[in-house]
Amino acid sequence: MERNIYLDNIAVEDAQDKWYDNLEIETAVETIDVREARGRITAQAIRSNLSAPHYHASAMDGIAVVAADTAGASEKNPISLEQGTDYQMIDTGEAVPDKFNAVIMIEDVNQVAEDRVEIEVGATPWQNIRTVGESLVQGELILPTNHKLTAHDIGLVLEGGVTEIEVYHRPVVEIIPTGTELVEPGTSLEPGEIIEYNSHVLCNLAEQWGGRGVKTEIIADDYELIKTQVEQAVAEKDLVVITAGSSAGREDYTAQIVDDLGEVLVHGVSMKPGGPVVLGTIRNTPVIGVPGYPVAAALTFRLFVRPLLYQLAGDEVPEVKKVTAKSAAKVVSKLGAREYVRVKLTQLEGEQRAVPLARASGQMGSLVEADGLMAISEFSEGVTRGAEMEVELLNEGMHPADTLVMSGSNDLTLDIVKNELAQKKVDFITKSTGSLGGLTALKRKEAHLAGAHLLDTETGEYNHAYVEKHLPNRDTYLVNLVYRQQGLMLRKEDADRLQKIKDLATSDLLFINRQRGAGTRVLFDYKLEEAGINPQEINGYDRVEYTHMTLAAAIANGGADVGLGVLAAAQAFDLEFIPVAEERYDLIIPKKYENDKRIQKLLEVIRSQQFKEEVLSLSGYRTAKTGQVMEND
Amino acid sequence: MERNIYLDNIAVEDAQDKWYDNLEIETAVETIDVREARGRITAQAIRSNLSAPHYHASAMDGIAVVAADTAGASEKNPISLEQGTDYQMIDTGEAVPDKFNAVIMIEDVNQVAEDRVEIEVGATPWQNIRTVGESLVQGELILPTNHKLTAHDIGLVLEGGVTEIEVYHRPVVEIIPTGTELVEPGTSLEPGEIIEYNSHVLCNLAEQWGGRGVKTEIIADDYELIKTQVEQAVAEKDLVVITAGSSAGREDYTAQIVDDLGEVLVHGVSMKPGGPVVLGTIRNTPVIGVPGYPVAAALTFRLFVRPLLYQLAGDEVPEVKKVTAKSAAKVVSKLGAREYVRVKLTQLEGEQRAVPLARASGQMGSLVEADGLMAISEFSEGVTRGAEMEVELLNEGMHPADTLVMSGSNDLTLDIVKNELAQKKVDFITKSTGSLGGLTALKRKEAHLAGAHLLDTETGEYNHAYVEKHLPNRDTYLVNLVYRQQGLMLRKEDADRLQKIKDLATSDLLFINRQRGAGTRVLFDYKLEEAGINPQEINGYDRVEYTHMTLAAAIANGGADVGLGVLAAAQAFDLEFIPVAEERYDLIIPKKYENDKRIQKLLEVIRSQQFKEEVLSLSGYRTAKTGQVMEND
Repeated sequence: MERNIYLDNIAVEDAQDKWYDNLEIETAVETIDVREARGRITAQAIRSNLSAPHYHASAMDGIAVVAADTAGASEKNPISLEQGTDYQMIDTGEAVPDKFNAVIMIEDVNQVAEDRVEIEVGATPWQNIRTVGESLVQGELILPTNHKLTAHDIGLVLEGGVTEIEVYHRPVVEIIPTGTELVEPGTSLEPGEIIEYNSHVLCNLAEQWGGRGVKTEIIADDYELIKTQVEQAVAEKDLVVITAGSSAGREDYTAQIVDDLGEVLVHGVSMKPGGPVVLGTIRNTPVIGVPGYPVAAALTFRLFVRPLLYQLAGDEVPEVKKVTAKSAAKVVSKLGAREYVRVKLTQLEGEQRAVPLARASGQMGSLVEADGLMAISEFSEGVTRGAEMEVELLNEGMHPADTLVMSGSNDLTLDIVKNELAQKKVDFITKSTGSLGGLTALKRKEAHLAGAHLLDTETGEYNHAYVEKHLPNRDTYLVNLVYRQQGLMLRKEDADRLQKIKDLATSDLLFINRQRGAGTRVLFDYKLEEAGINPQEINGYDRVEYTHMTLAAAIANGGADVGLGVLAAAQAFDLEFIPVAEERYDLIIPKKYENDKRIQKLLEVIRSQQFKEEVLSLSGYRTAKTGQVMEND
Repeated sequence: MERNIYLDNIAVEDAQDKWYDNLEIETAVETIDVREARGRITAQAIRSNLSAPHYHASAMDGIAVVAADTAGASEKNPISLEQGTDYQMIDTGEAVPDKFNAVIMIEDVNQVAEDRVEIEVGATPWQNIRTVGESLVQGELILPTNHKLTAHDIGLVLEGGVTEIEVYHRPVVEIIPTGTELVEPGTSLEPGEIIEYNSHVLCNLAEQWGGRGVKTEIIADDYELIKTQVEQAVAEKDLVVITAGSSAGREDYTAQIVDDLGEVLVHGVSMKPGGPVVLGTIRNTPVIGVPGYPVAAALTFRLFVRPLLYQLAGDEVPEVKKVTAKSAAKVVSKLGAREYVRVKLTQLEGEQRAVPLARASGQMGSLVEADGLMAISEFSEGVTRGAEMEVELLNEGMHPADTLVMSGSNDLTLDIVKNELAQKKVDFITKSTGSLGGLTALKRKEAHLAGAHLLDTETGEYNHAYVEKHLPNRDTYLVNLVYRQQGLMLRKEDADRLQKIKDLATSDLLFINRQRGAGTRVLFDYKLEEAGINPQEINGYDRVEYTHMTLAAAIANGGADVGLGVLAAAQAFDLEFIPVAEERYDLIIPKKYENDKRIQKLLEVIRSQQFKEEVLSLSGYRTAKTGQVMEND
């Protein structure tokens, strides 16, 4: 077991300094057609090759005249002119013949005969003529060096008789995905295989930041194969990125290869996600090894490649926009590593708050959903709820006032709500915290609303008793989302191994439970009690999943054999479903948000016929009371 | 002379309403590879085809264990495990074998023998394991409909096993440049020929606004040829633009062709530039005829095509950003047409001001330089200096605090200053108003500084007397820019027709003068007086150009035969140069701007060795006092 498990742990800024200070950033220049140059940056000042107009041009449709011939013309005393001698017809852009020095616009000309006109206003010399050089003079500066070309610029450069210009080369980034377990998108998967998509994310980020991204084939975890590819890449490209293999595992070769071929400047940065990053240089080409976890790959690429790409392209590095927001929740973080928590910004409790999203480095969804990054210092063990934090924006098009945050129980129909709300320009963020978790989030003012299906086992009523207990002094109302079937889910081949809850105690099927506080768990415990079973008789009672869907997926996958969940989840994974109960799922909405436009749009959605139809197209749902305010009986 | 000279004159908003209300905007959908979809907009919700991970995956490099086997491990009481039976080596991403249910990270494992390890901390069930569906669950909503894809999104979609997605088709705009006088860029020009660049500006604007622009060959002013192209275009493309021919001239066919093939909705809008625009529809395809003047073409395209492109692409029309600024100068405008004055924004007199740029529709440079458009109402005859105006931004990257405005005499070395200041992130706008014009602009506080070479004919001194007269109560200082040669310029073939100023009275050469208030004109008048010549003896004394370069261009072109100007201008146009005098060109800077960072950078530039070298590489300049403060003698 040979492992090089020692990584540096230097601060992000120190790593950046070490990296940028040791790179020789050289911008290259290329000649391109200006017609293809929008967004490119001039490497040389552009001067006009000619004057425009290059002749005296009529600025109007009309007649060319000699100004002196028209002096004194008036309404009472029009002057008559003869074609050929006194005037000539002329269109916009045509050269004014030498003998004339003014143009009278056609609207001011009275045609009195085929070859004769009258005018009532005299012309001043050079009126309505664009004289030579009016727009551009030969040799004049059109655009300075280091200027980013716009569509309008392209016109002026062409007008100046220039078609080819010198611009900075767009840096080409080669991205080398490594990993024996990786397969290309579109391949059907075997266990242990992972779809390789980091390279596509990084290619697209490179393009977004002014570079060009080129990915290679996936390369297996083989020292020689990777090394050969890296050698070729550094000879041809401006920047080389190796994804995965940057840490200190048995098959992590990046650091060693960079060290063999060039110099490792940094291996390991005190950041999360993304710590085990390799920053190096091989024959003056910057080479970076990023971790394989997608969030880590994207964030290290952002910190260590984004500024570099702009510099290589001769561009200014755009300032990263920052806003301040109060953390919507407490976040505990490890000392010794700066954590970049992905957050969604929302207007909550009358102020801008940052809602922390999933923190695992494998959760690409957290980056997709995020508006920005909230950095928790390496010298801190986290932030308290309400702490004022700086948020670095990832998404400048964010709109906190149109972001609605729900916490609580997960339900499949929330995806329909999310999609419909997106059409109404509301970003709907659902945090799967379980029914009780949702009430707690409301209590802590971490969300705008909660979703719950909590059975009061004494009354058989749903939710009201829990709301009264957990939110005693809060004015809330309950709006029904759906009624839904809960049942035992198991693989089709196991269908005859179980008929009812009671059988769980005697079967050897491996159960999988929902987390504490989940309404489904409350229901399960209630049903166990009803059946007179001690939870400890259930094999797997302590193992939990957090949503219906992950639970169903685990069963479909063989990670467990049986669990309680909704029919739609069972159907999504083609599982057997044994109905256990129908339950009520409500939204709990604080009264103070009654007039909030986001909540109003949410209610519009769930009260629409379309929503109900979409819900019913999933199985196991009833919408008889969907959208209704549920009074306490 | 058959002319259809009647145009409508309807308000911009009415024209937009008539246009958008009568178009049937249909978004088309296409299936593309998600890897190529950054910036595209989903036409359908994207749901995951699979769960990710699709198996229980190790989240760490380490060992897979059974959690229960590790219970009670501590530093004092380590637990020993045997390879194969108690643990198995596992790397990040590998499938956890069924028999194990936890992973201990390698850093927490002590290797004690080849096949034996010790651990000092127990594992909890499912620790360091990414369970099935942790990132994505099969069937889960990944992205809603009408969502613009980011680089991060692409990763998540690929992770969900989706490679092809439905997005809105990018609308294709065909741009048909018409005009017998037009030639393609890169062609050498004959008098009357014009470089066709509108189509490239519009193509690039179309791309910027989410469409695709395709230009056809230039088509001559021939009714049938244009009609054939339009017929073909409407059958294939989403939008058709005909440039030029939209007015009411002899060879303006656009309106008639649209009327023949479909319906003209609007012909003529009360706006400047851009009034004679044609808005129509042919077989459900929107067709627009834009005027040939480049500013008019770009502005009408902006008003009538930009919103349409976004809508056809299924995108939201981005809000046009607006700022308020005080007009830096009085602008007189015609009643009855809304004028879109291009303005540069600058911080002047402690507030944001809009500096009106060239107003002619042929001056593409005004759009290149502009930060925004200041609309002057069709019901107003203009705006006063200081009027608070709304400015619609063209350039969101504008930076008024780094924009420096100079007014006054034109000099070729100002192009060098402009280029060098651009490297220091200062936008240097020079308005050629002549030496006296510059002093007037300073008096009116329309500029930060002025440039002048005004000879006091009584003392032979430059500038001081004029500054004292025109800016009596202003504290200013003079900084020398250059000394320069002024001389008579004429075509080489005319070289022997003139030796000195006095000869002008007797020669039959056609003179061209500079405008009133230009220092060169003051110098010329002084030299005439010295030579005892009455200005009226000079053939062409009343004809004027506004800069050295346009004057030299006019002579080179045969528009005139002789004029007074600087050596560098003569050389740029290969003209004969007969020296008349050396004169001093100074910058006049109000003391209050002494510490302004833009002025400081300007002084840094002109005091640099590099600037002096570049100036001397032009001919006819001396830099002995360049950058020095000039005291009154």
